[in-house]
Formats: sequence, structure tokens, C-alpha cells
Amino acid sequence: MTVSIEEIKKHNTKKDCWVIIHGKVYNVSDFIDEHPGGSAIILKYAGKDATKAFDPVHPGDTLIKYLAPKYHLGDAEKSTAPKKKNDEYDDDEDEPPTPEELDRRQLVKNKPDLSQMYNLNDFEFVARHTMEKTAWAYYSSGCDDEITLRENHVSYQRIFFKPRVLVDVSEIDLSTTMLGTKVSIPIYITATALGKLGHPDGEKVLTRSAAKQDVIQMIPTLASCSFDEIVDQAIDKQTQWLQLYVNKDRKICESIVRHAQKRGIKGLFITVDAPQLGRREKDMRSKKVEDLSHVQGDDDEADRTQGAARAISSFIDTSLNWKDIKWFRSITKMPIILKGIQTVEDSLLAIEHGVDGIVLSNHGGRQLEFSKPPLEVLIELMPILKSKGLQDKLEIYIDGGVRRATDVLKAICLGAKGVGLGRPFLYAMSTYGDEGVYKAIQILKDEMIMNMRLLGVTSIDQLNDSYIDTRNFQTRYLPEDRLFGSVYEPLVSPTFKSSKL
Amino acid sequence: MTVSIEEIKKHNTKKDCWVIIHGKVYNVSDFIDEHPGGSAIILKYAGKDATKAFDPVHPGDTLIKYLAPKYHLGDAEKSTAPKKKNDEYDDDEDEPPTPEELDRRQLVKNKPDLSQMYNLNDFEFVARHTMEKTAWAYYSSGCDDEITLRENHVSYQRIFFKPRVLVDVSEIDLSTTMLGTKVSIPIYITATALGKLGHPDGEKVLTRSAAKQDVIQMIPTLASCSFDEIVDQAIDKQTQWLQLYVNKDRKICESIVRHAQKRGIKGLFITVDAPQLGRREKDMRSKKVEDLSHVQGDDDEADRTQGAARAISSFIDTSLNWKDIKWFRSITKMPIILKGIQTVEDSLLAIEHGVDGIVLSNHGGRQLEFSKPPLEVLIELMPILKSKGLQDKLEIYIDGGVRRATDVLKAICLGAKGVGLGRPFLYAMSTYGDEGVYKAIQILKDEMIMNMRLLGVTSIDQLNDSYIDTRNFQTRYLPEDRLFGSVYEPLVSPTFKSSKL
Amino acid sequence: MTVSIEEIKKHNTKKDCWVIIHGKVYNVSDFIDEHPGGSAIILKYAGKDATKAFDPVHPGDTLIKYLAPKYHLGDAEKSTAPKKKNDEYDDDEDEPPTPEELDRRQLVKNKPDLSQMYNLNDFEFVARHTMEKTAWAYYSSGCDDEITLRENHVSYQRIFFKPRVLVDVSEIDLSTTMLGTKVSIPIYITATALGKLGHPDGEKVLTRSAAKQDVIQMIPTLASCSFDEIVDQAIDKQTQWLQLYVNKDRKICESIVRHAQKRGIKGLFITVDAPQLGRREKDMRSKKVEDLSHVQGDDDEADRTQGAARAISSFIDTSLNWKDIKWFRSITKMPIILKGIQTVEDSLLAIEHGVDGIVLSNHGGRQLEFSKPPLEVLIELMPILKSKGLQDKLEIYIDGGVRRATDVLKAICLGAKGVGLGRPFLYAMSTYGDEGVYKAIQILKDEMIMNMRLLGVTSIDQLNDSYIDTRNFQTRYLPEDRLFGSVYEPLVSPTFKSSKL
Amino acid sequence: MTVSIEEIKKHNTKKDCWVIIHGKVYNVSDFIDEHPGGSAIILKYAGKDATKAFDPVHPGDTLIKYLAPKYHLGDAEKSTAPKKKNDEYDDDEDEPPTPEELDRRQLVKNKPDLSQMYNLNDFEFVARHTMEKTAWAYYSSGCDDEITLRENHVSYQRIFFKPRVLVDVSEIDLSTTMLGTKVSIPIYITATALGKLGHPDGEKVLTRSAAKQDVIQMIPTLASCSFDEIVDQAIDKQTQWLQLYVNKDRKICESIVRHAQKRGIKGLFITVDAPQLGRREKDMRSKKVEDLSHVQGDDDEADRTQGAARAISSFIDTSLNWKDIKWFRSITKMPIILKGIQTVEDSLLAIEHGVDGIVLSNHGGRQLEFSKPPLEVLIELMPILKSKGLQDKLEIYIDGGVRRATDVLKAICLGAKGVGLGRPFLYAMSTYGDEGVYKAIQILKDEMIMNMRLLGVTSIDQLNDSYIDTRNFQTRYLPEDRLFGSVYEPLVSPTFKSSKL
Repeated sequence: MTVSIEEIKKHNTKKDCWVIIHGKVYNVSDFIDEHPGGSAIILKYAGKDATKAFDPVHPGDTLIKYLAPKYHLGDAEKSTAPKKKNDEYDDDEDEPPTPEELDRRQLVKNKPDLSQMYNLNDFEFVARHTMEKTAWAYYSSGCDDEITLRENHVSYQRIFFKPRVLVDVSEIDLSTTMLGTKVSIPIYITATALGKLGHPDGEKVLTRSAAKQDVIQMIPTLASCSFDEIVDQAIDKQTQWLQLYVNKDRKICESIVRHAQKRGIKGLFITVDAPQLGRREKDMRSKKVEDLSHVQGDDDEADRTQGAARAISSFIDTSLNWKDIKWFRSITKMPIILKGIQTVEDSLLAIEHGVDGIVLSNHGGRQLEFSKPPLEVLIELMPILKSKGLQDKLEIYIDGGVRRATDVLKAICLGAKGVGLGRPFLYAMSTYGDEGVYKAIQILKDEMIMNMRLLGVTSIDQLNDSYIDTRNFQTRYLPEDRLFGSVYEPLVSPTFKSSKL
Repeated sequence: MTVSIEEIKKHNTKKDCWVIIHGKVYNVSDFIDEHPGGSAIILKYAGKDATKAFDPVHPGDTLIKYLAPKYHLGDAEKSTAPKKKNDEYDDDEDEPPTPEELDRRQLVKNKPDLSQMYNLNDFEFVARHTMEKTAWAYYSSGCDDEITLRENHVSYQRIFFKPRVLVDVSEIDLSTTMLGTKVSIPIYITATALGKLGHPDGEKVLTRSAAKQDVIQMIPTLASCSFDEIVDQAIDKQTQWLQLYVNKDRKICESIVRHAQKRGIKGLFITVDAPQLGRREKDMRSKKVEDLSHVQGDDDEADRTQGAARAISSFIDTSLNWKDIKWFRSITKMPIILKGIQTVEDSLLAIEHGVDGIVLSNHGGRQLEFSKPPLEVLIELMPILKSKGLQDKLEIYIDGGVRRATDVLKAICLGAKGVGLGRPFLYAMSTYGDEGVYKAIQILKDEMIMNMRLLGVTSIDQLNDSYIDTRNFQTRYLPEDRLFGSVYEPLVSPTFKSSKL
Repeated sequence: MTVSIEEIKKHNTKKDCWVIIHGKVYNVSDFIDEHPGGSAIILKYAGKDATKAFDPVHPGDTLIKYLAPKYHLGDAEKSTAPKKKNDEYDDDEDEPPTPEELDRRQLVKNKPDLSQMYNLNDFEFVARHTMEKTAWAYYSSGCDDEITLRENHVSYQRIFFKPRVLVDVSEIDLSTTMLGTKVSIPIYITATALGKLGHPDGEKVLTRSAAKQDVIQMIPTLASCSFDEIVDQAIDKQTQWLQLYVNKDRKICESIVRHAQKRGIKGLFITVDAPQLGRREKDMRSKKVEDLSHVQGDDDEADRTQGAARAISSFIDTSLNWKDIKWFRSITKMPIILKGIQTVEDSLLAIEHGVDGIVLSNHGGRQLEFSKPPLEVLIELMPILKSKGLQDKLEIYIDGGVRRATDVLKAICLGAKGVGLGRPFLYAMSTYGDEGVYKAIQILKDEMIMNMRLLGVTSIDQLNDSYIDTRNFQTRYLPEDRLFGSVYEPLVSPTFKSSKL
Repeated sequence: MTVSIEEIKKHNTKKDCWVIIHGKVYNVSDFIDEHPGGSAIILKYAGKDATKAFDPVHPGDTLIKYLAPKYHLGDAEKSTAPKKKNDEYDDDEDEPPTPEELDRRQLVKNKPDLSQMYNLNDFEFVARHTMEKTAWAYYSSGCDDEITLRENHVSYQRIFFKPRVLVDVSEIDLSTTMLGTKVSIPIYITATALGKLGHPDGEKVLTRSAAKQDVIQMIPTLASCSFDEIVDQAIDKQTQWLQLYVNKDRKICESIVRHAQKRGIKGLFITVDAPQLGRREKDMRSKKVEDLSHVQGDDDEADRTQGAARAISSFIDTSLNWKDIKWFRSITKMPIILKGIQTVEDSLLAIEHGVDGIVLSNHGGRQLEFSKPPLEVLIELMPILKSKGLQDKLEIYIDGGVRRATDVLKAICLGAKGVGLGRPFLYAMSTYGDEGVYKAIQILKDEMIMNMRLLGVTSIDQLNDSYIDTRNFQTRYLPEDRLFGSVYEPLVSPTFKSSKL
């Protein structure tokens, strides 16, 4: 059945609410109050096409899963309105874009060739200037003053190398093993939410690139694509892991875990650093009040403005604790890894509770501001594990702030089994799609080979702490505070009577 | 009786001086030489309306208290002059505003919605651009190069957290007790002078917001509102404290203290870091020579330019010393707290003299430049108190530079009982009034809940130094010197013959 | 006799060279080859008025002393040429001033009132914008990258205070004693060369202000005024010291010293850090090739461009060594102080050689780049002297980088007897003359009184190292390198195809 | 025989390819596939004049050595086309220069006089603005984020001096001995590749200046001039050293070494830090895709864009190791020095393998990012050598980041025998040719004499670690990261409704 645009437009109230999604018309009147993201965001599109807002935050099977067939009203009439002549405007836009948005679209058209990307920072630079404002803000933001966000990277620069010379480095082998899987380089694509904000194919782009480059992808709970879409995208023998936000409803949780095991997932990464998702002010600031900020949909103002992450995370169980580990063991044979360990103390507890691994991580600087950089925790942790003979009891992963092969090498020298990268691949995906992510990993591989040669090692297992100088961590310098600093009004010198001095 | 404007204008000399205040005419000729703020500032308004300059520095009952009825001459004739058409001008302005002032008024009209305030720095940003120049300068300024002012905040950023995971954090309780009063969050509104510079209701705005948010307000000696006005504004059972500048005349001092106790004040905070009020060059620089700088009123040039604070503080007793504590004990049963302790040594003396608490404070960086940040004193103090078994002998408060819930958490972890904030609430009050202050406290509460969750604690009493890493304080980095740095002329490279290089 | 301008103009060659100085005509043909500053600078003014270039580098009695009466030809005809209408031009200018110079003259006319000077940096700011380019460059420059110049000041900011409260600070006494002289504040005006570059009265301005403020002036060897002019300017009982560059010709040296003692000088400060005067690139860069740079006058290019200081310092004895101290003792009873001690080792040698005092100084950052800041030497020195019981064997002075009373207080707390300031008083003199220097000292006094109150001390002898925290000196941070940093070309991100990004 | 331009133009394909070099026509069709730099770069010039691209990367005897006479076709017809009127264009340019290039040519015409060069940074400043873009990029670039490049210099600024006074410094002797050669100052001109990028005479400029200033030149393997051209340029008794990249083909290697010994080379410096040449992004970014980046000529995109260095370095043996030292000993009597030692461990191995010296170097920050600054390695190395009695077993040289005589003095104080400078002399050569290099060395000599005087030493052998304070190296500060920092988007304050704030 085809429904006319005129007809659809009439159903634009909370009690009588129709929306178009991917060309189909749905009556969501009965559902609107149960929408986990709140009613406000739906109402914004009442009587209109909601596809663009719907896609990034809902996996492809959402409507089928959650909306009974009777609410599927038919196909929306195709627009017969003449295309606007100004090709700067998207067809589905109600209002003309802002000057900033027009500038952005120009930059999209003029973006550098992929061949001009020489390092992972380059993708971030292009992403910053070409991604849609809210998408960029969601990906790039950290908590509070973003000090932790930056410290994560900066901490790597506090380590210097002690390179050895006159070693035969003709052949370099980058491969290693993670949780039993052989990989081509000791990095993996870590889980990050809402992939469709950056690319229409969402997380599937990462799946395809991971396959081509022989690295592991960790599938996020909050993916834009459904779990099965992402697993289906994988080639034979491609290894994927699952990142899990633990649902308050343990039955849902159990069904997710069992399904993942059945689909061949090789590692269960339980996120432990996010009982509540952080406030990310760059994200909040990026939106107009009436925009994505309404996703949350309730009437509390504080909540209404807290961005996409909060909207989709209300299900996370704040009561998750060490006792739950046993239960997870009982429902799966997958290796269990705790993602988000931030102290030596909790690393030791993890061993005590018999998990298979930990990820030293502060969630990319998006959760607790002033959580110590994972690299610093790693530096403290390894000597303690070694002194207790526990260094082989679990595999240690690390993420946050990694941009260069030198960063990866430093973490491996310190005892990490593998290094996760998130944002850099999102930026590569958002700017150059599959080729971008492939190239980003290739850059890391090229850098790794060169730097291992220059360091005087030929395989990953040769890397150890004799190759690095970590004395910088005995003291700490002052992190850079850009917000407080920018708000402070500096002193001035006396004013000349008629002059600009 | 109504007095004509024409008549008033005639009495414009020191010997024959009339002024209008709140529509009433006063003959101040006999009083002018005794004015604590000097005669110059009165003379500036001789024959004119002085209300705007009078209000912020005089509590509402000043005229009744200090000027005999015979000097109250009657009502001033209402202005019949046609309103100026240019609505940018205030009615009572003698001269057209400066371009800077016109810009400021535009900004006032365009200020962001309150909902756009995401952190306490945001209020400062809006205040900086919308407050009247002299008011902003008085609130924001610090002493000398404002290094101490900035160190107060920056010191908090030298502490990193050691957050624990897998703790059940479903329920978070922010409440605690200060000097016996249960409060909703371990912060209080500390005393700051001249509230009417920022808002016509002055300190009463803070009283009302404190009530709504269930926090304690400390009433300043140098309030724009009278003490009783502020106490009257409080609701039943609302707790208020009193900050006391000790008057040279101990009888006045005693009467203030006894009155405060009678009115139900629950804590007497004696300021000990201000035998002389500091020079604040930003404040001094902000005024035209003939403006508020004349408040002091004497002929010494150095004094004439030292701003509002000096003008109203000449009564402070420079001889106040440890022996006086006993006397205070003899006149009141209120808990006595010393505000402005800056060393371990004086903290120990405070215990010896039996006071109930101390506030580690350097007066918000407004007194002695290079006084150590209170947080650093706290870090040194607690281990010493514990080693002597004195940690429960007094309650320790701290103020200066607090902007984020993470700052509050760090101070509590180190042993502080409560944390005072001054400027942030002044900025919130000056920009958005009652709603602003309410929102500012709400932001802190929201941040506190989230950060306690992420830190893995559920109540204030669980916080201790195992959650923080203070190694940064073993050494110190170089504070930022913006004034000296800006005056220094950098070296240049050689000049090309005809080029801008 | 009056000589016509036409006539004078004819004598413009090396063999036949007349010049006008202060309206008098001199034949310098026979003298030109013996001119210590070289012939080039004289030739530049051959046949012209040389007064402006002559004054700053020659004391007033130079012509009488060194040029036989027969070379004094008479008075120069007074110019009858009509004054140029453009009052921006000086009368004696041959060519129109540069745009930069015209800008400067505008700024001179619009300079802030003296009452707007709130700290010593303010004088530097005004001086930088109003002084003649070459004069500013000579006063302000340091050696090499000017890192030492800035470290001298910045080192003070590494010390924080530990202020004591509840001390009766009603009465503050700033006075102290230096080499037996009672002074009003523990600072002195240190010796700096070429005072007439900044003010027509040169060092006499400093003499007069020193008298009014009751501080000691150290008279420089390289003064623009003659030694006797400066001593004559002093009032009865005013104390002056003499700074001495030791001449290769010890007879000249002895006659200077004996004359000084006879004139009542109370201290002989022998400069030991300048066997060769430093290269100061800001100074060198400031001049046109044909300008003051020719003062040196020889044909070696490297020397020709090394500025005023080198030109007038060729007499300094590079062979001066410890053995010479005994000889100085034999020719004078004045206290002998070594100015320019930069190590603990040399401080101990100084005691061994029985001098009366030392000035810890690196010559204001004008000699050896990376000489340690004097304050750091002082911090190291005092504990060693105390451990050897030598702390009373000599008086320790310090100079370099002092701008605030807090700086002075820190040096005194560390054991310095007095603190010398040079540039700040030059800048005050160059911008506001006598009143400027008086005000600059008054600012320091006002700051001292306030800061001693806030520190909890009432007299200079109470200051000791319990009032300061010097832990910052256990490690050192990286000094700021502006030149290398500005020459380095930063990395860039990839270029968008048609955009400014 | 003369070949017409028209005829040459026809041979512009891979199978039929003629090029003009220095006015002569060559048929390179048979050779094109064997070109070590790849075929792409040749094809770019097929049928055209290739001289400008050919010269910097090929020594003068290349064509004779590698191209059989039958391919030398004759002289190219001289261009009879009228000169373009716009003298901004080079004659041989196919297309008009870019605006940036035109700006640069203007700057070349207006460059400062040589007399305005006051320090070595000045040459870099002029070079940056006047050198051709790709030449500047090749010389100036470092690896990755160029942190190592800058640390090399900045590390010198972490050392402060402890200057001694009252030493007779009338006579200063800068001379010293390196590998048995007496030199006028303890510096040498280190090997750097592709001298003709900066000057048409290439390395010969450095040879001539070295002779005039009596310093040693190290001849690079990758010189633009042939080894013999450079040796022929030397005067009698002038000492030269040879830097050697070890060729995979040891016969070629042996013939180079034996020839060098025969020609009188006095030291063989084997580069050990470059099994693979580093990626230098500034260099890569500087070129258009179709430009010098094709030198590599193969089809792998990653390789195609890696700049000149990679193109000419494919012969370097990645298998070179400690066992090879013995072989070198067997083929030459020249002293053997390992250039590029970066750790204490390898320094000790070098002694064990009996070499005559080492150069502590990280290749000017062009190879492994985060290799420790050589100065820091030197600080660690010397105490260990002394404790083992090995300090005289080999001569220690150092290079990287040296710009001032104070840098040289610090290295010598720490035990270095000599200090190598590369880039500063390249910049001096590229801007002012022979006179520039002479002046640059002269500046260092002038600075050395002055600074030794001010340090209180008169000859090089007196320098030792009692003259320096190295405590800054006990901890390390955070290096400056300009790229990551510039890509990060700072937080912003809330937006006013209609304002630019």
C-alpha cells in the first residue's frame, strides 16, 4: 500500500503519530511512551521522514523486532516535488543548512586524496573538517575538560626508546597471538558505538577491513548495525570479539552472550568502567537544543542535553560487581576479559576471579576525568605481577590514545599482549570508508616494520622493557587545561591614551 | 516634602552637599568628613543621584543607622525630562556609554540560555562578557600576577584518580555533616563581599538558592545586604554561618558576634589571612581615575587607586593574634573556625588553641601572592595530623579554585570535611540570578553522582586517599606567569630587505 | 668666536674633521685615530652636530680632559634655517624618521599617567613602546637566546610562601643595614651603564631618587655622567657605592679607587663576571649597519656589529684574578665586594680571600648564557655556609630579575642582605624621570609592607627560610626557548584541495 | 652532433626515451628499467631537459660510469625561443610557478645581508624562506612528529653552567685533536646527503670552507658530488673523513673503502642507525604527487611518496651486524668509528669490538622517533666508562641539535671529543654559499672564545663536568607534541546568541 505524503503529515501528534523510515510508513502512537530514547525525539519527526535520525542509533532489525506488523502501514509515496536546484541542499532537508554546514560540504568535496594520509592524525584532521557536526562531536568528545582524553595519548610521549644497532633486521615479523588467535600485528579494532554516524555501512566497514588486514574486530553492544549483521559480514575464520554492556535484565544479557558464543565469537569483553555513561560537554555543546539532544526524551533538562550516549545506555546495570563474574563463567565458555580496569588493585582482583584477560582502559577518556592514563597503570602493574609470579595468569590489553606504531611498541615492551584503537579507525571510516580503514592499518604496519628495524628487533616476542626509558613516570608534569585557561582573563599592561596598546 | 532637581543641583560642594539615594534627598555636608570610604566618592555625586554607587557597598539600613533624621530632607522630584530615545542608555547616565559598554549591553541581551551552562566555567565565561566592568574586575581579580589565583585551581589537576570497578553503585548518597548540620553535598557557599555588584538582591540570592539546594551559606562581613536582611531571607531550619573580619573596636565586634548567635548562626568563621586587604591590579586597572577608585577618598594617590576592597576594609584589626581566640570563646558558644590557615604549623596551633575547625584558604588568591595552594597544604597536613592522632580534633574545610565535582572529591579524599566555593556562585548569580545559582549547585550534584559511580564509591564517608594519586606534589612545575611573559619582548630573526618577514 | 655652519661642513674627512658638540666646534683630526670607540663613529658626524650620539657614551668632562684647548675652535653658528613645520621631526635630523619612529613618538605623547603604574612591569611595558629603539635594545637585551635573562626572574616564581597568621602586624619596619649603612628597605639601585640613553640627566636621576627614598645607589664605571657629577648630585649623608670594571692599566684603576674613597664612597663592588662583555643579539639587531654599531670603529666585521657595550669596554682587564684582591686591599679601606659570583665554589674562595661581600649575579643575563639564576646559587650556598659556620663572614647581595616585593622577600628569607635592581629603575627613569624612579621604589615599599603583614612578620630580621618552600629547585623544568622554537617550522596536516585548511 | 629539440620531444615513451642533461642528449630506453631510482622519475622527463632533477641525486661522473657511450647521442640544439619577458620565470620551466614560489623568489632577492647573521638559527630562518620547497623539506625534516628532532637541541638547554670567575683568561686556545688531526675548534662538518639541493657546487662548498676554517669535513655516501670530486676539492693536508652506508654488495663496499684509504681519508664512519631510512612526513608532504616522489619509481603507493632519501638508499644492507666489524678491520687501516650509537649498551659493545670511536647520534632525529637525545646518552655513558676504566678506549663524538657554542662546550664538558654539525652548515651553504659556511663557523669560534672566557677556562682540555649542572636530566619533562596538539579540537565555552563570542 502506498500512503500519500499529505496523509502522513496529518498524523503529527503524540496520540496519533506516523513516521517514515526507509520509505515505509509506521504508526508509532502506541509505542511512543515506551521508546527507550524518550518520546521527544520521535515527536520531532511526527508526520515526517525520520530515517536519517533513526539509522545511526537503531540496528537494522529494530523495527521488525520491536514493532508489531500491524503498525507497518505501507510504503510512503515517493516525493514528486521538483528537486531543489541548489545542489548544496540535501533532498530531505526542511530548512536551509547553516553557513557552517555549507562550508563543511565544500570541504567534503575538496578533501585530500587518501594517498595524502601519512599518519593516523591525518584522518582525524580530515574527519574534524568533513564529518557532520554532531557525528564528529559524538566520536571525538571526552569527559569534563578532556584532560584524560589527551593524557591518554600524551603519556606515550613520556617514554623514550633505547634502540640497539648492528642487529640483522633483514626480516621483520609483526605477527602475534591474542586469546589464541594469530594476528598480523598486535593491534585490534576496539568497540565504539554508533558506527553509522560516520558511515552508512556502520560497523560492517570495520569488519571488512579487519578481514583484509588480518586483525581482530571487537563488536560493540551499542553498534548501529545489529550483532548478526556484523557477524554475517565477516569472512570464514575471521575472528571477532564481543564487547558487552551488562543489561539490568540478566535474561537479555544471557541471551546475548549465548548467541555470541553460538555465532563463533572468540572473546567476551565485559565493560566495567561505565556503570553510568560520562558527560561529554563537547558532544552536548555541539547540538541545537531541539536536535539529537531530545533523544533522551524525558522532561529533566539536565538529561535532555546529555547527548546520544546517555540516550542509548539507560539499560546498563549499575549494580554489576565482582560477584557477577561467576555467573558469566556459568553461561559461556568464551574467554572473559574485563574491559576498563584502571588500577593495579583491580587487576589483582581480576586474577583472583579467574578471568582470562583485562583491558587497561579509561574508556578513551570518556568516563571519569583524571582516571590515570592506562599506560601509567601498565607501568606500575607489570613489576608487581612479576614479583608475584602472576604475569602469565591473564592477557593484558590496553587502549586509549594510540596513534603511532611507536605507541604500540611501547605498550608491547611494557607487557601488553595487544593494543586497541577506536577513534582512529572511526575517523578513517568516516572519511574514506573501507579504503580509509585499510590504509590506516597499513600505515601502522609500515611504521611498525620500520621502527622495529630501527629498534633492532625482528619479532614481537623480542620486545621488552630493556628497549624503553620510563623515568618520566617517576614524576608527573601538569596536564594542559584548555577550558579553565581559556576562561581566565589575563592581566593587561596599562593603556596608552590614544593607541591600541 | 518634595525637593526639585534644580534645587538639589545647587548643593554640590563639600561644605554644602546634597545627594539623592533611592529617590530621597539627604544633606551629607556634616557627615562627609567622617565617611569611612572618604569624601571624594561622595563629592563625585554632590547634587546628583548616588544610588547606583551607594547600593553595592552599603547595607540597606546604613542611612537609618548612621544619618540623623534631620539630614533626611524629603523626596526628590521625579524626573520629568523626556526619556532618551536611544534605549541603549540608562536613564540616570550623565554621559553616553563607551563603545565597550555598548558592546557589553548587546552581549547581555544575547547571553546564552541557562540550559547551555554545562559546567561552572561556563558561568564565568558569561559573567566575564556581561558583567559591568568594575563589578567583574572586583569579583575576578587576584593579587599581583594572579599566579596564586590560578594555582588554586590548577593544583587540583595535579591529582589523578585510581577508580575502582565492579562495585555496586546503584545508590549514591552525597549527603554529609558539617559542624553538626546535615547537608545534601559536601560543599558550601563561602563568604564573598559586595554581592550587589553582581545582582540587585545581593547575598539574598545566595540565601534562597542555598535553601533550595540544602547547602550552607556563609554570610560575609562585607555584604551589600545587612546581616539581618540575609538572615531574614533564610527559611526555617536553614543553616547559615558568619564570616567575621575582626573590627579594631572590640565592642562592635562583640555586638556582631552576640547578635549572630542570637539569630541562630551555627558557625563563626574568623578571617585570619587579611590583616590588610591585598592589592588587586586587575581591579585597580579596571576603573577610570575619577570613578570608584575615589572611594577611599584620601589624598594619597597610592590609596586612591586601590579599588573597592580597600575602601571598605579600613576597620580590620591588624593586631589580631592567637591570644584573641580566648576572648572569642568567652563571648560566644558558636563553633569557632579560623578561615585562612595556610600552613601545617598554624593548623597545629589552631588545635592547641581549641578552635572547632579551620579553613585552609589563601583568600581565593586575593591576598599574598605565592601563598601555597590550599590543596597542597591539605596534602601535607593530614599525614602529620594522623601521625599525632589529631585528625579528629577539628573539622577541616578548604576553599579556592574549586570548579568541578572531581575537585570536591579530591579534597574529601584527602580529609576535608567540606569545600567552599565563592566566585562560581557569584558568577552564576550575576548572570542568571536565583536560577543560575541553583543550576550551578545542581551541576555539581550531577557531576558528583556520576563521578562517585565511576570512582566506585557510594557515600561520602567511603572516600579516602586510596582513590587518588598525589605524586605530582613531590615536585612542582613552574607556574604560568602571564604578565612578565607578556611584557618581555621576544628575540626576532633577521629582517628581509623588503618583506614583512 | 663663532664658526659658520657652511665652514664646518667643509671639514668632513678623516684628515680634516670638525664636529659640533653642545654648540661648540671641535677639530678632532689629530685625535680621531686614538678614539677608544674607533674612528668610524666620529667620521659619521664629520662636519655635523654629533651631540646626540656623543652624550650617552661620554661623561660631561670628557672633552676638557682629553682634548687640548687648541682644538676648541669656538661656538657654532646658530641655525637660522626655518624650523620644519612638521613637529614630528627633530630639528637636528638629517632625514625623515621611519614610520616606526613616528609611531613611537605618538606613543610618547600618549603614554599613560604615572598613576597608572601599578607594578614594575608596567614601567617596562611603557619603556618598550616609548624609548628610542637603540636605547631600549641596549637596556633590555641579554646574551644569546635570553634564556638566562628570563630565568633570573622566573626562578623567583618557583618559590612559594608559607605565611603565618594571627600575628600582630600593626607596625611594619622595612629598614635594614647594608655594609654599615641604614637603609629604608633592603634593596639598592645597582650599577647599569649609559644612563643618558634613557634620560638626559642620566645617572643623576637615580641619585636624586635614591636620596628621596633613602636607598643606596651603586655608581657604574660606564656611566654617562662623570663619577664626580654623580657624587656631587648626592645630598649630605647619602650613601653611594662604586661598581668597578678593572682597567688593564692598574694606575688608572688605582686613581679611580683612591678618588672614590676620598669622595666618601662606602663600598667598592669589583665586577668579576665580565672579562669580556657578552654578545647581545637584540642590541646588535636593533641598529642600522651604519649607526651606533660603528662605535667600535675597527674593521673587523664581527666587532663592528656588537653594539655599544663592546665599544666602551675594551679597557677591561681579561687577566684579573684572585691574586689581585690583595692589591685592592692595599690601596683602599673601602669594603670590597665581588660582583658577579656565580657558584658556591667561588663564594668560598671569596671568603678565603677576605672580601667583605659578594653579589650573586650573572650580570642580568647579559654575559654567559645558561649561567645559573643567582637565586638558585643562593639556595645552594646558604646551607653550606651554615654547615661551615661561615654565614657571617661576608654580606651576600643578589641581583637579576627582581620585579616584585615578593621576590625581595624570598631572597631575604634565603639569607641575602640586600637585593639589587637595575633595569626596572632604568625603565622608570626613561619613561617618567625622577617621579618614575621614586614611584617605582614606592611601589616596592607598599608591596613590602603589605606582603610582610600577610606573611606574618614585622621586621626584616624575622625573615628566614621557614617562610618559604623551595622544593621546586630539587628538579628543574625546561627553560623556554623562543628563538629556536620560532625558527622551527611546525608539521602541518594534509591540504584540502581548494580551501585554506 | 646537434639534435633538434623537436626531434628529442618525439622520444617520450618508456620504450623510446631520450633526455637532455647538461645540454647533451641521451637515449635511456635500455637503462630505464634498471634505474635504481625507478622508471617513473625518468619518464617524467622523457623528451625533455632533466638536468635540474638529475643533478642533486647523481654525482658528476654518473653518466660516464653507468651509461655506455653509444647512448650519448650528441648535443641538444640550443633553445632559440625568445626569453620570456617575465624574469620571474626560469628558462627551463614548463609551467608558471605557483604564487608561493613567486613569493619565495622575491624573498631570495631581498634576503638579509650576511652581516646580519648573528647566530646559526639565523641561517635556518633565511633558508626556510628562500630555499626551494622540496630542498628545504628534505634538509629540515625529521621522523614522525619531529619530537626527537627538537629534543636533540632542547636537551642542551637542560644543562646550566657553573662559571668560575677571577681566572686569567687573556689567552684562549680553542684547538684540539680528533683521531690524531689537530683542528682549530672541537667541531666538524658531519655528513649530510644531497648537497646540490642547496647549492650548485654541493659538498664542495663545505670542503672549501672546512679548509679555510681548519675543521674536518665528513664526506657522505649519498653526496651529490662524487667522492673524488670532493676529495679533489680539498687543499693539501686538509683532513677528510668518510661516512659509509654499507652496501649489500660487499665488493662495492670494499672497493669504496680501499679507494678512500688510498685517497688519504683519515676516518671511516660506518652508519649503524639506518638499516632502513626513516619516514619523514614533512618531506613527503612537501611534494606534489607527480614530482620528486616518483623517484622511487615502483608501483607501491606507500613507497612512491616517501621522498628522496628512500629512493637513493635501497642499496643499504639491513643485515649489517656486529660480526661485520671484523671484516672492515681486515680491509682497511683507517680508524673505524660507528656512527649512530644510541645506548650505553652498544657503546660498551663497540669497545668490545675494538673500534676507534663512536658517534652518539640519532641521525638528526630522522630515523627512530623517541630515540633518546644523544646528550642524554652521553650523560649516562661517561660515569659508566669511568667506573670501568674504559674512558680512554675510544673517542666519543656527538651530533644532533647543536646550534650554539654553549652547546659545544656542554658536550665537551661531558667528555665528547668533538661535536658534529650538519643542518646549520647546509642552511648556511644554501643561503650564502662559501661565505655563509665560513661565517657560520666563525660565529661558533667567536662564541666559543667569549664563552670560555666567561666560564673561566682557557683551553679545551680544562673543560670537565665541574662546570655544568645536569640535574635536569634526573627527571624529564614532557616533550612538545605539535601535530597531535594541533589536530585536537579544543573545548569551547557556550555561544552567545548573536555575537562572535
